[in-house]
Amino acid sequence: MADGVLAELAAALPAGSVLTEPAGTAAYRRDEASFCPSGAPLAVLRPTTTEQVQRAMRIATAHRVPVVPQGARTGLSGAANAVDGGLVLALTRMDGILEIDPADQVAVVEPGVVNAVLSRAVAAKGLYYPPDPSSWEMSTIGGNIATNAGGLCCVKYGVTGDFVRGLEVVTASGEVLRTGRRTAKGVAGYDLTRLLVGSEGTLGVITRATLALRPAPEAALTVAAVFGSPADALGAASRIMTAGLRPSLLEFLDSVTVRAIQDYRDMGLPEGAQALLLAQSDRGPRAAEDVTAIGRICAEAGALDVAEASDAAEASMLMEARRLVNAAIERLGATLIDDVAVPRARLVDLVEGIGAIAAEHRVRVSCPGHVGDGNMHPTVIFDRGDPAAVERAERAFGAIMQLGLSLGGTITGEHGVGVLKRDWLAKEIGPLGTRLHRDIKAAFDPLGILNPGKVLA
Amino acid sequence: MADGVLAELAAALPAGSVLTEPAGTAAYRRDEASFCPSGAPLAVLRPTTTEQVQRAMRIATAHRVPVVPQGARTGLSGAANAVDGGLVLALTRMDGILEIDPADQVAVVEPGVVNAVLSRAVAAKGLYYPPDPSSWEMSTIGGNIATNAGGLCCVKYGVTGDFVRGLEVVTASGEVLRTGRRTAKGVAGYDLTRLLVGSEGTLGVITRATLALRPAPEAALTVAAVFGSPADALGAASRIMTAGLRPSLLEFLDSVTVRAIQDYRDMGLPEGAQALLLAQSDRGPRAAEDVTAIGRICAEAGALDVAEASDAAEASMLMEARRLVNAAIERLGATLIDDVAVPRARLVDLVEGIGAIAAEHRVRVSCPGHVGDGNMHPTVIFDRGDPAAVERAERAFGAIMQLGLSLGGTITGEHGVGVLKRDWLAKEIGPLGTRLHRDIKAAFDPLGILNPGKVLA
Repeated sequence: MADGVLAELAAALPAGSVLTEPAGTAAYRRDEASFCPSGAPLAVLRPTTTEQVQRAMRIATAHRVPVVPQGARTGLSGAANAVDGGLVLALTRMDGILEIDPADQVAVVEPGVVNAVLSRAVAAKGLYYPPDPSSWEMSTIGGNIATNAGGLCCVKYGVTGDFVRGLEVVTASGEVLRTGRRTAKGVAGYDLTRLLVGSEGTLGVITRATLALRPAPEAALTVAAVFGSPADALGAASRIMTAGLRPSLLEFLDSVTVRAIQDYRDMGLPEGAQALLLAQSDRGPRAAEDVTAIGRICAEAGALDVAEASDAAEASMLMEARRLVNAAIERLGATLIDDVAVPRARLVDLVEGIGAIAAEHRVRVSCPGHVGDGNMHPTVIFDRGDPAAVERAERAFGAIMQLGLSLGGTITGEHGVGVLKRDWLAKEIGPLGTRLHRDIKAAFDPLGILNPGKVLA
Repeated sequence: MADGVLAELAAALPAGSVLTEPAGTAAYRRDEASFCPSGAPLAVLRPTTTEQVQRAMRIATAHRVPVVPQGARTGLSGAANAVDGGLVLALTRMDGILEIDPADQVAVVEPGVVNAVLSRAVAAKGLYYPPDPSSWEMSTIGGNIATNAGGLCCVKYGVTGDFVRGLEVVTASGEVLRTGRRTAKGVAGYDLTRLLVGSEGTLGVITRATLALRPAPEAALTVAAVFGSPADALGAASRIMTAGLRPSLLEFLDSVTVRAIQDYRDMGLPEGAQALLLAQSDRGPRAAEDVTAIGRICAEAGALDVAEASDAAEASMLMEARRLVNAAIERLGATLIDDVAVPRARLVDLVEGIGAIAAEHRVRVSCPGHVGDGNMHPTVIFDRGDPAAVERAERAFGAIMQLGLSLGGTITGEHGVGVLKRDWLAKEIGPLGTRLHRDIKAAFDPLGILNPGKVLA
């Protein structure tokens, strides 16, 4: 059968767009998630047009072959991992920016355009595409939409889904579905656009997106505060949000992360630094008073030190701690990055509970996070070469999700379900929610060929 | 069968919550839409708890009786209209504000709470619930969510759906489904919350909602500009948006509306006034320069007169024209209110095309609208007593939707599909979109008892 499929694909797609040699396909097997199974694909397809995607899906449907849509493989849940004997549909060659319209403040793009490429192109026209996942220099808009990616700006501007007006999607059977619209408002029928956003390639293949833009923001001012305890920093973060300030960024680094950063590169943090808050305001003439107010709240909450950046260079220095997080943590061992989000009032309980989980399972857990959204990234650090340590790490990882749920939160704020958390999804949404997910999946993909085994077990 | 259903309902629900006398049920038959069929309900149920809603739905499912969920019946598409022999589920007694949380900036409410009641309650805590449909003093949050209601603030703050974090919904079979979350971010599974928002009671009965709030906005400043032609005013509106200003309100009144208002109450508009723009900015220290910039753009675009309000009383005077629209138009005859939205660059084509449609069908059409969103309310004015005039009005109404679609727009920006536009919905979303709508409907409501005949024919 495989030969028949490959022959049909070779006939249907341009030369060079069907990779079958293991040396060529190996790179497409997996995303950035740890411990997620990935298979050996039958072929990797690299279409350049919607019509080629349609042809591929028709052949896949005819032969009941699984298809995994894929962007830049920067995901952290295994959602883009290949499955054995299936096709990988790599959309990175469909990377056109078709239109940037200042009158309607929309952009129309193909799925493979890299977030940073689009962001810079719209900035050049005085506009702003806010979603800024940490992967933004590499990740594609299609992948951002498929995972409803978040980022640092969400605390003020919202997530990817808030900027998706309409989609063109190729269905499992190879039909073209157009959802949503170009206009800001529209209520004609069910919101299929938002249903597709975050569906991780299980409902359709995104081939085009109409994105909302905003006017360019004003330059942000930055303030950093060092605390003697994570609880003090979290208390300050909560008060900043409750005070009605609208920071355009509010990041928290816990004690493990702060120590890792200090060990990696001495940032000159004061003795006893156990937590860091970083905040920005881009409210133009209000930004200066915002960062002063944020600094004052931090000081009142017991900050050991508060530093306002007086210029862009200083701001960049203050933000450096945040940028070093991944490099500093990765030096400590293998990592399992969690992604719980909890109500802001429960953040202290979350961070303290994570401390208890780390002690119980004898693992180290760092806990940086987008604290303004309650979205934390507890990261279990372990020795990959020690099977017992790996097992303890996996148990701690699960315990953190259970803790997040028990605090009224979610198992995933922005990284998605993929393979990594599909068993946990059922715990969060319950049997009725799961049943509705399956029925919706069946409506879009009755044969179950689109990204099987992802999101739903 | 009807007697059996009524006996079961009477046994399952508290005394006084099942109305069956025609005198009592007549008021629940229809919403504010013209020309939409409505039936005689078997009974009107007025539950006060989620459990009572569950009991009602179980009985309805057992007997295959249609159920129409209903708020304050202020809708404009017939979505809340009763069906013959069915049950009306009036949710207005479930009107509790269960929680307003300043730390997480969320409110948890029952569906029957009136928008204005909630808006004032959150304002008293220094918070802000932006969605402000014109019906806000009467309409319920449940109805606002079911229709994804818009309003005047959308141009800056978005629509109802942008503020819905999570829902509790009773399904057709009487089960309780909880969707979404309390946290700002979350990507666990498909976005069932957004699927339910705007589904007009066809997928489930909303019994509780978790809503996002914002910090209270600053006081808005107001500017009004009078133009000698609608095209000049639309040109100014387009330039205001393209200039990157972020008005918190941007309303357009066309020549028919301006004349109707002048006839209704002399606003002292200058000779030759053929269109009006009203704008506000609430950007604090930037508001003054915003309204000055807006005024300058209007003057450059040919405004006959530009007036900035110097205080709240003057602002209120400038806004009076907007408030008088409905009263002034209703004096002219019966009305069919349309709700197309088009890309902003096509607004001039829309308004000119509407003029041509009015001439062709020999009807008067006023065209006020939320011009910042491209969402216009072309209103066909006719003599209800003249069958030929009614027929011409209905044809003009359809021609306006066709024009909206041909300009890349949507048949409904904020009023919904209901009964009024269900045939048009199929034109907008096409056969594949319609098929997916039906399959999703079947996943939630396999017997088709929830608001049958609404949205989907």
